[in-house]
Amino acid sequence: MDHREENESIRSGDIENDGSGDGQLERKESNWSSDGGAREPLLLHHLKHRVNTTSQIAIVGSKVYPIESLDYEIIENELFKQDWRSRKKIQIFQYIFLKWTLSLLIGLLTGLVGFFNNLAVENIAGLKLLYTSNLMLNDRYFAAFAAFAGMNVILATCAAVLCAFFAPAAAGSGIPEVKAYLNGVDAHSILAPSTLLVKIFGSIFGVAAGFVLGKEGPMVHTGACIANLLGQGGSRKYRMTWKWLRYFKNDRDRRDLITCGAAAGVAAAFRAPVGGVLFALEEAASWWRSALLWRTFFTTAVVAVVLRSLIQFCRGGHCGLFGQGGLIMFDVNSAVPYYNAVDLVAVIFIGALGGLLGSLYNFLVDKVLRTYAVINERGPYAKILLVICISLLTSCCAYGLPWLAQCIPCPTDLDQRCPTIGRSGNYKNFQCPSGHYNDLASLFLNTNDDAIRNLFSSTNKNEFHLSTLLIFFAAIYSLGIVTYGIAVPSGLFIPVILAGASYGRLVGRLLGSIATLDVGLFAIIGAASFLGGTMRMTVSLCVILLELTNDLLMLPLLMLVLLVSKTVADCFNKGVYDQIVRMKGLPYLEAHAEPYMRHLSAGDVCSGPLITFSGVEKVGNILHALQMTRHNGFPVVDEPPFSDAPELCGLVSRSHLLVLLKANKFTKNRTISGSEVLRTFHAYDFAKAGSGKGLKVEDLDVKEEEMEMFVDLHPITNTSPYTVVETMSLAKAALLFRELGLRHLCVVPKTSGRSPIVGILTRHDFMPEHVLGLYPQLQHQK
Amino acid sequence: MDHREENESIRSGDIENDGSGDGQLERKESNWSSDGGAREPLLLHHLKHRVNTTSQIAIVGSKVYPIESLDYEIIENELFKQDWRSRKKIQIFQYIFLKWTLSLLIGLLTGLVGFFNNLAVENIAGLKLLYTSNLMLNDRYFAAFAAFAGMNVILATCAAVLCAFFAPAAAGSGIPEVKAYLNGVDAHSILAPSTLLVKIFGSIFGVAAGFVLGKEGPMVHTGACIANLLGQGGSRKYRMTWKWLRYFKNDRDRRDLITCGAAAGVAAAFRAPVGGVLFALEEAASWWRSALLWRTFFTTAVVAVVLRSLIQFCRGGHCGLFGQGGLIMFDVNSAVPYYNAVDLVAVIFIGALGGLLGSLYNFLVDKVLRTYAVINERGPYAKILLVICISLLTSCCAYGLPWLAQCIPCPTDLDQRCPTIGRSGNYKNFQCPSGHYNDLASLFLNTNDDAIRNLFSSTNKNEFHLSTLLIFFAAIYSLGIVTYGIAVPSGLFIPVILAGASYGRLVGRLLGSIATLDVGLFAIIGAASFLGGTMRMTVSLCVILLELTNDLLMLPLLMLVLLVSKTVADCFNKGVYDQIVRMKGLPYLEAHAEPYMRHLSAGDVCSGPLITFSGVEKVGNILHALQMTRHNGFPVVDEPPFSDAPELCGLVSRSHLLVLLKANKFTKNRTISGSEVLRTFHAYDFAKAGSGKGLKVEDLDVKEEEMEMFVDLHPITNTSPYTVVETMSLAKAALLFRELGLRHLCVVPKTSGRSPIVGILTRHDFMPEHVLGLYPQLQHQK
Repeated sequence: MDHREENESIRSGDIENDGSGDGQLERKESNWSSDGGAREPLLLHHLKHRVNTTSQIAIVGSKVYPIESLDYEIIENELFKQDWRSRKKIQIFQYIFLKWTLSLLIGLLTGLVGFFNNLAVENIAGLKLLYTSNLMLNDRYFAAFAAFAGMNVILATCAAVLCAFFAPAAAGSGIPEVKAYLNGVDAHSILAPSTLLVKIFGSIFGVAAGFVLGKEGPMVHTGACIANLLGQGGSRKYRMTWKWLRYFKNDRDRRDLITCGAAAGVAAAFRAPVGGVLFALEEAASWWRSALLWRTFFTTAVVAVVLRSLIQFCRGGHCGLFGQGGLIMFDVNSAVPYYNAVDLVAVIFIGALGGLLGSLYNFLVDKVLRTYAVINERGPYAKILLVICISLLTSCCAYGLPWLAQCIPCPTDLDQRCPTIGRSGNYKNFQCPSGHYNDLASLFLNTNDDAIRNLFSSTNKNEFHLSTLLIFFAAIYSLGIVTYGIAVPSGLFIPVILAGASYGRLVGRLLGSIATLDVGLFAIIGAASFLGGTMRMTVSLCVILLELTNDLLMLPLLMLVLLVSKTVADCFNKGVYDQIVRMKGLPYLEAHAEPYMRHLSAGDVCSGPLITFSGVEKVGNILHALQMTRHNGFPVVDEPPFSDAPELCGLVSRSHLLVLLKANKFTKNRTISGSEVLRTFHAYDFAKAGSGKGLKVEDLDVKEEEMEMFVDLHPITNTSPYTVVETMSLAKAALLFRELGLRHLCVVPKTSGRSPIVGILTRHDFMPEHVLGLYPQLQHQK
Repeated sequence: MDHREENESIRSGDIENDGSGDGQLERKESNWSSDGGAREPLLLHHLKHRVNTTSQIAIVGSKVYPIESLDYEIIENELFKQDWRSRKKIQIFQYIFLKWTLSLLIGLLTGLVGFFNNLAVENIAGLKLLYTSNLMLNDRYFAAFAAFAGMNVILATCAAVLCAFFAPAAAGSGIPEVKAYLNGVDAHSILAPSTLLVKIFGSIFGVAAGFVLGKEGPMVHTGACIANLLGQGGSRKYRMTWKWLRYFKNDRDRRDLITCGAAAGVAAAFRAPVGGVLFALEEAASWWRSALLWRTFFTTAVVAVVLRSLIQFCRGGHCGLFGQGGLIMFDVNSAVPYYNAVDLVAVIFIGALGGLLGSLYNFLVDKVLRTYAVINERGPYAKILLVICISLLTSCCAYGLPWLAQCIPCPTDLDQRCPTIGRSGNYKNFQCPSGHYNDLASLFLNTNDDAIRNLFSSTNKNEFHLSTLLIFFAAIYSLGIVTYGIAVPSGLFIPVILAGASYGRLVGRLLGSIATLDVGLFAIIGAASFLGGTMRMTVSLCVILLELTNDLLMLPLLMLVLLVSKTVADCFNKGVYDQIVRMKGLPYLEAHAEPYMRHLSAGDVCSGPLITFSGVEKVGNILHALQMTRHNGFPVVDEPPFSDAPELCGLVSRSHLLVLLKANKFTKNRTISGSEVLRTFHAYDFAKAGSGKGLKVEDLDVKEEEMEMFVDLHPITNTSPYTVVETMSLAKAALLFRELGLRHLCVVPKTSGRSPIVGILTRHDFMPEHVLGLYPQLQHQK
């Protein structure tokens, strides 16, 4: 079945710009469906198979369901008014209690999953590295490489198989999808239970396989999936449902929960509760309420407490190889940040460099993703093959490059063992004679978390050679670019931090004694600069880094470097997440209207004729409209028998129509049945189902003789839709649409005497592709 | 001149609920004008003096100008379209450059003022305390008291005279007013240059006078004033204007700048840049954009850098008595927070206690403010007298209560001097023999910052007796309540932190060795609990406290205690700032609609008849309307000569009408002059002037013969006003109004054939007082 969401307002086939314009757009727009495949020319496909072809905008929204908006409160209907009035105080308390319990549960579960993830990765990767280094100790270098690469490929294949066959939506970071969801775009099965499971295990295998990728993005996605699962009251497919969660079956509550989940994910990934809240606020959420700040904060606090208790438990040695290593908390740096003018200049330079490298990184990631899209759409086996290739490449780099590094004699004034034989630690022996260490191996043949800790550490200033840092930076930068986009859950934070820290430390080393700032702190600043250059967040990154390093005195320097790098990078392109959202073709609504929209009016972009229903409509007409279109909202117009002149009664939604028709309560005559009919329903019958879970037209069972009967739509009509006059500035209509989180915006005529509704604006009508497709002359004003 | 802002939609005098309902409401609502006086029964006053009496809502908006909304973009007009099109790229860069320069300037100035404030306070209060303690060393106790109390009264009188005569708006915290401004309510002269000056110096005198009040609230207000001054391009009154700031003469830019200013104020007060950003987000701002996060962050970063450099400079001993003392940065606590189950229970207990004490505090502050309002409205001399009384009371407590405390022998294992003879330090000698110290004097006879530092310190666990802490808590709690509301700039943070820290430390002492947590950390937790209980912020307080104490490991405990105290306190009443906003009668729009609004429609609360203008209107009619009403928006309706049927053309604002009429370009006949007329204007002629600075009706110079002439209103009409249908749910109309930051919302009829506009909804129409006044039967559903 084709889940394509079409544009809401039907356009007749012969509207200009509908034919040629489409093709043009199609070529410009690469289509990335949420699962990373499907680059088909959607519109052409469309024209062949559908009766009611819609605008070219369908191409940007492949396999996307915009989630219902906050607007569609059927509370105005009689049923829900009564329901609201009769609801006892106890139910309101129950709601509040459940809301907080859910936040608690999200925090608990995300914390547990985050811990489990770290525990598993540390143990699997630890065993792998231990085995490899044991082989190397016995000078069996080829065997060691074979074992290392072999285990990496096996782990990578596990992750890829899970991703390719069970939940394609689990590939990648997940942050762009969560961001799009919170903007109102529900990509296919992006928060499904299968995605959750694959995300958890795929991320463990992927990180343990030694890829240059992180577990932070996947943790955010995991948090959001957990929140969604809890919010929709379990999974019907897996026969786990909780009746008492029925209150949360609406978009507003679900969206709030998922915001909490995303924040919990960051908190679990970095042990940064405040950073998690700010991440949710700055990057993830499109709408924000003050009350949400408090709930998010509560959730992340729970995560912090859970993680703390579990780590406390592990200190007793109950967790295998899980030690200081897991759960990055780089409070290893005890250097006090004193800095002078030279340091400030260096910091500004690092910031600018981070901005340049970051925007280049984004550009290259974009190119690589588009290339991989071609490979990935060839099916699951192609995906797995790609993963294996990248895994082999990574293994070669990680094992091969350290041979280029010189052996360094161990410093004598250390309280650490050197070289460290075993899993973690700064000084890897590799091929060196005893008493020496290979500094490049210390970075490559460790988990990514340990490598970051090594780079951030300030115990030994000269631990890493200049050439080592340069090689490591180049390798990580390139591997990071080619790794993102393969069919494995892959976060971007870790590669970016690794690359940034290595060039930061490099600058610190180059400055030598001119700088008073410690090289470890330079590494932190480098990481901040590259993070700012790729992700373009400021406050949340700053707080996350502060929470990671536990050193508030770094704050002014971090702020400075983030501001510089973001400013520089913004001159070139958009943040990496925005770029991925755009490339996947998710119709993301920007916070501001485009300038050229000021020259257009609402009527300019929405064209008729519309499908409208009468207040009391023939069942056959409704059924036909539901079958022929995939519109989610239909205007209801009262006509002369029931009103003096045709007037707009309101909007009715597809899902509510389906519930009403399913009950088969029809009348022979065109009469207003009033709220009588609704008595047979319960308010929760109309509750929003999980994505793709609601009733479908095929589920209806309408007999032939019923087709000529009538049904009164008034009880289920939202009688207070937001409207704009057709002459309203499009920029202002866009603002209204975005700020209120609407799904449908009715356009009414300015002069009376015409049809009471001119059209409906949906998310797709505000997309630059659509508007500029209709008015290409505005392009140059953009 | 009476600056009263009336309700926009005129109601005929005989609408029911207009007479009796008013009196009733009037008695219920205490009226606090922004300067803390004026409790006159506004409506009665009204009925006497005005031709067009408006609804009872006037009483909630005394001396209040709602600032213009983001809606009123005249950019849709021909003039501005051209202007926008012709604007070169260089101008856009200029705008961006200026925006960032302004943010930089706000940060610089706020940082400088914050430093100056601390420098002055430390030196004045230091000299005062030094002189007093010198007298005491010579056993001249009465002379010491006389000197102490005398100097306090002199300083207090200086502050009060400034406040009472020059800028009444500078009294109090200022945070509620800034919060109201950012919600869209421009109280009289709240951000004027005179307010700024009085706020700075009044705060210095007030804090130096030893009152139990802080400089944090005033710093926020100062930051906002600086931002406003810069944003409106200087002050015309003081002949300082900058032409190049003309771009910022609109509400949106001004509001953004003031948000930055408020954040900079918090950053300067606490040296907490991230805390400042979060404060602006959580407490101050009503609208938030992601771009603003970044700018606010930049501003607070500048503040942090300025403060750091100046403190660095002062380390050289160039700043008199200003030492470690100034600019609270309580990173004195080096204790590591280990805690067990007992500690957690204690923390939860402290949280609950903080919630209870906080809500009681808010309740009492409210009562005291209402009492003081009666005193303050008797004129400036009454205000000054009240200040002197409270100053004497404070002096008596500070000097008298330490006599109750026992002398404690100095501990021997200290690396500090004990007793400290001189200004600051933990161990005050007071009346004790040498080798002993008076612990209560160590708290009372210090600056408030030093007292907090003493309470937070963990060097000597038994430094303070239980009875000392109890007496200090009781004294500060009571003095804090009676001090807020006197005519002195007074912040609430410091009294709350002091009281909270003392009971926190008390609990720590009581637990003794059962608890593993340090008493200093208990003091911090106590301060957090009381802050949470009064101010009801969570994330921002948490971050501010973390930045103050520089100890991230406290985070989970702080989160826990804040969550508990806020939850407990929210059961009883609202946060102290919300309460003050409400009491001052500022029409603050809540983020959510009240539940009873769901049962009303937009048409229910707005009643006609309206004053409307034709597209081409007679000058006399316009002038009459402007003179007779104080409405800020008038609907423009095109009538048959210019259109087929009467239709709504748009809204025209008072300020734009005045600019148009001032030009005296009228036509003899009823003709559309088109955009010709506008050519004579420049876009900046229509720019928003500072509050109370724009053209007034009295400034117009219209000759008698011109009264019968016509003027074309089309060029200055906002042709895209937001509209709602009269049957729209009031809750949804309120949401639209609030989310988009509107000033006027047009209500249009549902059925055609009637007047094209039914009424205008303004901020006042959504106030619970108004709605419940019209529909008292909804009261019980509230």
